[in-house]
Amino acid sequence: MTKSKYKRFKKFFEPNSVAFYGASRSFMRFGSFNMINLIVGGYKGKVYPIHPKYETVLGIKAYKSILDVPHDIDLVVYVAPISVLADKIMDEIGRKGVKNVIVVSAGLKEIGKVETSKNLKGIIEKYDITMLGPNCIGWIVPKENIYCTPMPIYHEPGEIALLSQSGSFAAHTFLALNQIPFKVSKVLSVGNCLTTDLTDCLEVIEEDADSKYIGLYIEGIRRGKEFVKVARRVSLKKPIVAMQIGQGEAGKRAAYSHTAAISTPSELFDDICKQTGIIKVENTIEMLNLLYTMSKQPLPKGPKIGVITIGGGPGTLIADLCEKYGLQVPLLSDETQKILKDKYLPFTGSAKNPVDITFDQDFTNFYKNVPKVLLKSGEVDGLIFYGLFSADFWTRAINDLPDYMQEDDTFNIDNMDQIKKSMQVIMDQSFKRLKRLGEKYEVPIIFSAFNDRFNDQSVESARKFDLPVFYPAEASKIMAQMFQYKKFLNKYS
Amino acid sequence: MTKSKYKRFKKFFEPNSVAFYGASRSFMRFGSFNMINLIVGGYKGKVYPIHPKYETVLGIKAYKSILDVPHDIDLVVYVAPISVLADKIMDEIGRKGVKNVIVVSAGLKEIGKVETSKNLKGIIEKYDITMLGPNCIGWIVPKENIYCTPMPIYHEPGEIALLSQSGSFAAHTFLALNQIPFKVSKVLSVGNCLTTDLTDCLEVIEEDADSKYIGLYIEGIRRGKEFVKVARRVSLKKPIVAMQIGQGEAGKRAAYSHTAAISTPSELFDDICKQTGIIKVENTIEMLNLLYTMSKQPLPKGPKIGVITIGGGPGTLIADLCEKYGLQVPLLSDETQKILKDKYLPFTGSAKNPVDITFDQDFTNFYKNVPKVLLKSGEVDGLIFYGLFSADFWTRAINDLPDYMQEDDTFNIDNMDQIKKSMQVIMDQSFKRLKRLGEKYEVPIIFSAFNDRFNDQSVESARKFDLPVFYPAEASKIMAQMFQYKKFLNKYS
Repeated sequence: MTKSKYKRFKKFFEPNSVAFYGASRSFMRFGSFNMINLIVGGYKGKVYPIHPKYETVLGIKAYKSILDVPHDIDLVVYVAPISVLADKIMDEIGRKGVKNVIVVSAGLKEIGKVETSKNLKGIIEKYDITMLGPNCIGWIVPKENIYCTPMPIYHEPGEIALLSQSGSFAAHTFLALNQIPFKVSKVLSVGNCLTTDLTDCLEVIEEDADSKYIGLYIEGIRRGKEFVKVARRVSLKKPIVAMQIGQGEAGKRAAYSHTAAISTPSELFDDICKQTGIIKVENTIEMLNLLYTMSKQPLPKGPKIGVITIGGGPGTLIADLCEKYGLQVPLLSDETQKILKDKYLPFTGSAKNPVDITFDQDFTNFYKNVPKVLLKSGEVDGLIFYGLFSADFWTRAINDLPDYMQEDDTFNIDNMDQIKKSMQVIMDQSFKRLKRLGEKYEVPIIFSAFNDRFNDQSVESARKFDLPVFYPAEASKIMAQMFQYKKFLNKYS
Repeated sequence: MTKSKYKRFKKFFEPNSVAFYGASRSFMRFGSFNMINLIVGGYKGKVYPIHPKYETVLGIKAYKSILDVPHDIDLVVYVAPISVLADKIMDEIGRKGVKNVIVVSAGLKEIGKVETSKNLKGIIEKYDITMLGPNCIGWIVPKENIYCTPMPIYHEPGEIALLSQSGSFAAHTFLALNQIPFKVSKVLSVGNCLTTDLTDCLEVIEEDADSKYIGLYIEGIRRGKEFVKVARRVSLKKPIVAMQIGQGEAGKRAAYSHTAAISTPSELFDDICKQTGIIKVENTIEMLNLLYTMSKQPLPKGPKIGVITIGGGPGTLIADLCEKYGLQVPLLSDETQKILKDKYLPFTGSAKNPVDITFDQDFTNFYKNVPKVLLKSGEVDGLIFYGLFSADFWTRAINDLPDYMQEDDTFNIDNMDQIKKSMQVIMDQSFKRLKRLGEKYEVPIIFSAFNDRFNDQSVESARKFDLPVFYPAEASKIMAQMFQYKKFLNKYS
């Protein structure tokens, strides 16, 4: 390979035309799903279905062979039987001059077809083709409206690149988009890694200006030394969050059946993470939560966390977990405690840290005054909140009031209507101010609450101003993982 | 205490009348919230607001003193200043003959008022009153439409009792109801535990026929020996799921500021769990997930888990975590593998376990045939699925198709309409059959998927037939915790 890796991948990212094998008359087929999603997702380039029998496929003129297409083709997506690919089609693709191919179809090394695998590799090398797969799931480039997986989910471009050996993780995770509003720049799934592996993808994303954060799903690391070298270089520029699966006995068996991967032993992987600065996570949700937060909030400069809560229990849990994961929740200075006590806390509150404002209904104290005192004191490097005053909540309560309550002159109904109307405005103002406060002091702010992840005005409002919302137990770990990466950067960059 | 604990608590559970201190003209007050929610929640008994100034409170006739109320009162809820309670009100309550009192107000031992605390205790003992609190959050008894906390959330009665030192956990967790549709029988929050602690509550719930599963939020165990004795006895009848907070340095400080609790050291708590059969969880979501699952599915009789997946990656993760948490994912026998391979799996699938049907679109294989083969073989004690075919998904894809695709005669639009309409029916049938299959073999079945937790037809449908849905990483741990409890029962009951 003499061209830079990024250049070789360019036509995966900006193809003017795609030839598609495997879409057909039946809606309930993998190939049809992928092509439908490519088109429904809004891809602007030309699509040429290749089909041995039909004149049109999904309403688009089809060709019997790629050699019949009277135009240049930038990229091939292959979702048809893999034996035909090795025997005949890949050679035709090569002769057509196409240099980028995505093979979704499975059925090679993971089911024992080592010979076919070798043949295919030979043809690819002969024509200098860059191939993803086989046994991958497609790819996603929101900037070009490319959402070519079996899942019809689309979103605006973000800054997170997901690189995955597992197709399910690369595609199904988008089902969680309403829970965690992460946004991707690129998704590449590599499957069996016949000629392109995760290390290649890392090098490509290293050069990709649209990608600032990287998520890696690993079933087994190949070319270990090269991986470590590249990962370390890349993670000094862009954080890499990774999970490895296939650790247990059944897991190893499954990983091999899946993508013919030989999984890396768990201790070795831990070691690799330490050497390279990769942030290791335990599961998919943890990965997405962390990447999403990193894309919205700065890294904490130190380990000292201020916890601001409307409930003692959750505040205590957050403090426990901060310490468990290597952060500190320092006792605030007498001076800072005095300011909080005298000015902003009810007499039943605690100013020690966690700062417990109890069920005080003063938005201004919770969202503005208390965090301001903490940040101004310089005694904390990050803030975790527990509690979101949900506007929906009070609105619902007010709507359900029995008539006699509403008619009672002791109960100021006009004021309630006012509350209802102004709640959204108050929310937005509060979060906007808090976002600015965080920016001023360059300190990360993470919220936690049990509120619904969507259909909840307060969560939506917080997210609108880049303030992530998690469950209490998640927030502490995310903050700790961000600090872990910060320490790596401090040490080596 | 000579009466049984349950009898002493009876009027918390079935009060005919409640006197309420602390509701007022202002909507934005803790006391007002609690009383509004009691009434809006549908409580059928009498409510008597007690207020020193107003003639009516929230549209209901108020009394200057409880002694002025010309009726019997079963229960008092107190959300007014606590100094007045100790100085005067508790004595009036005693003289009125009320035996059950819930004190929501805080501000005693946790802020250093030891003397006031002692006085209050003296009066309570003099009148033989059973009191919850101070510094609790109210209580919930759905059977009687009692939802007396600051959170306006109501649901039908369930079989889970939540007993909590932290008020936030007892009330705020209900914000997660859409994510985890657990249903409670009773919620009791004990706060500072001045006279009633969690051990008392455990004894009460032991006798409560409506409660079959118990969740415990602990900040610090008091009367350790008694707790162990009671918890062990109770957990042989009803599973107890518990979390303890206040483990770290800041956490201990916070727990004391919160409910004046001295937290139990982590190792000691682990030991207590082992002795008593308590299932320890790390956080609130884990607790609710587990209690919900136990209320819907039987315990696994052994450690052998069958994993059925539509994606290799998530299947591998589930297998890894099963083994990590002490379960097994056994290689299926040649015979069973042969049946699966010959009859139900695509050639790219794996029959080893995890059983990977890949992205095969055959509902009948995934939801019926494959699980049937596994259960019939007797080789597994529980099933974890990965993947839910979401009806919403295909519906959305179909709706978004461009006209030229829909008009193309290769594309059978009538058939698509059919799919759209019948999807819900297919879902329901599949889950209904699967539920029956699980019941026949007395084996727990848990689903995992990244699908939204609500607004998703397939998740709703699964839940309708008592099949819980979690993220992949959650499912394995829940199954392992259920097996852990089963082993305790096998050994000691």
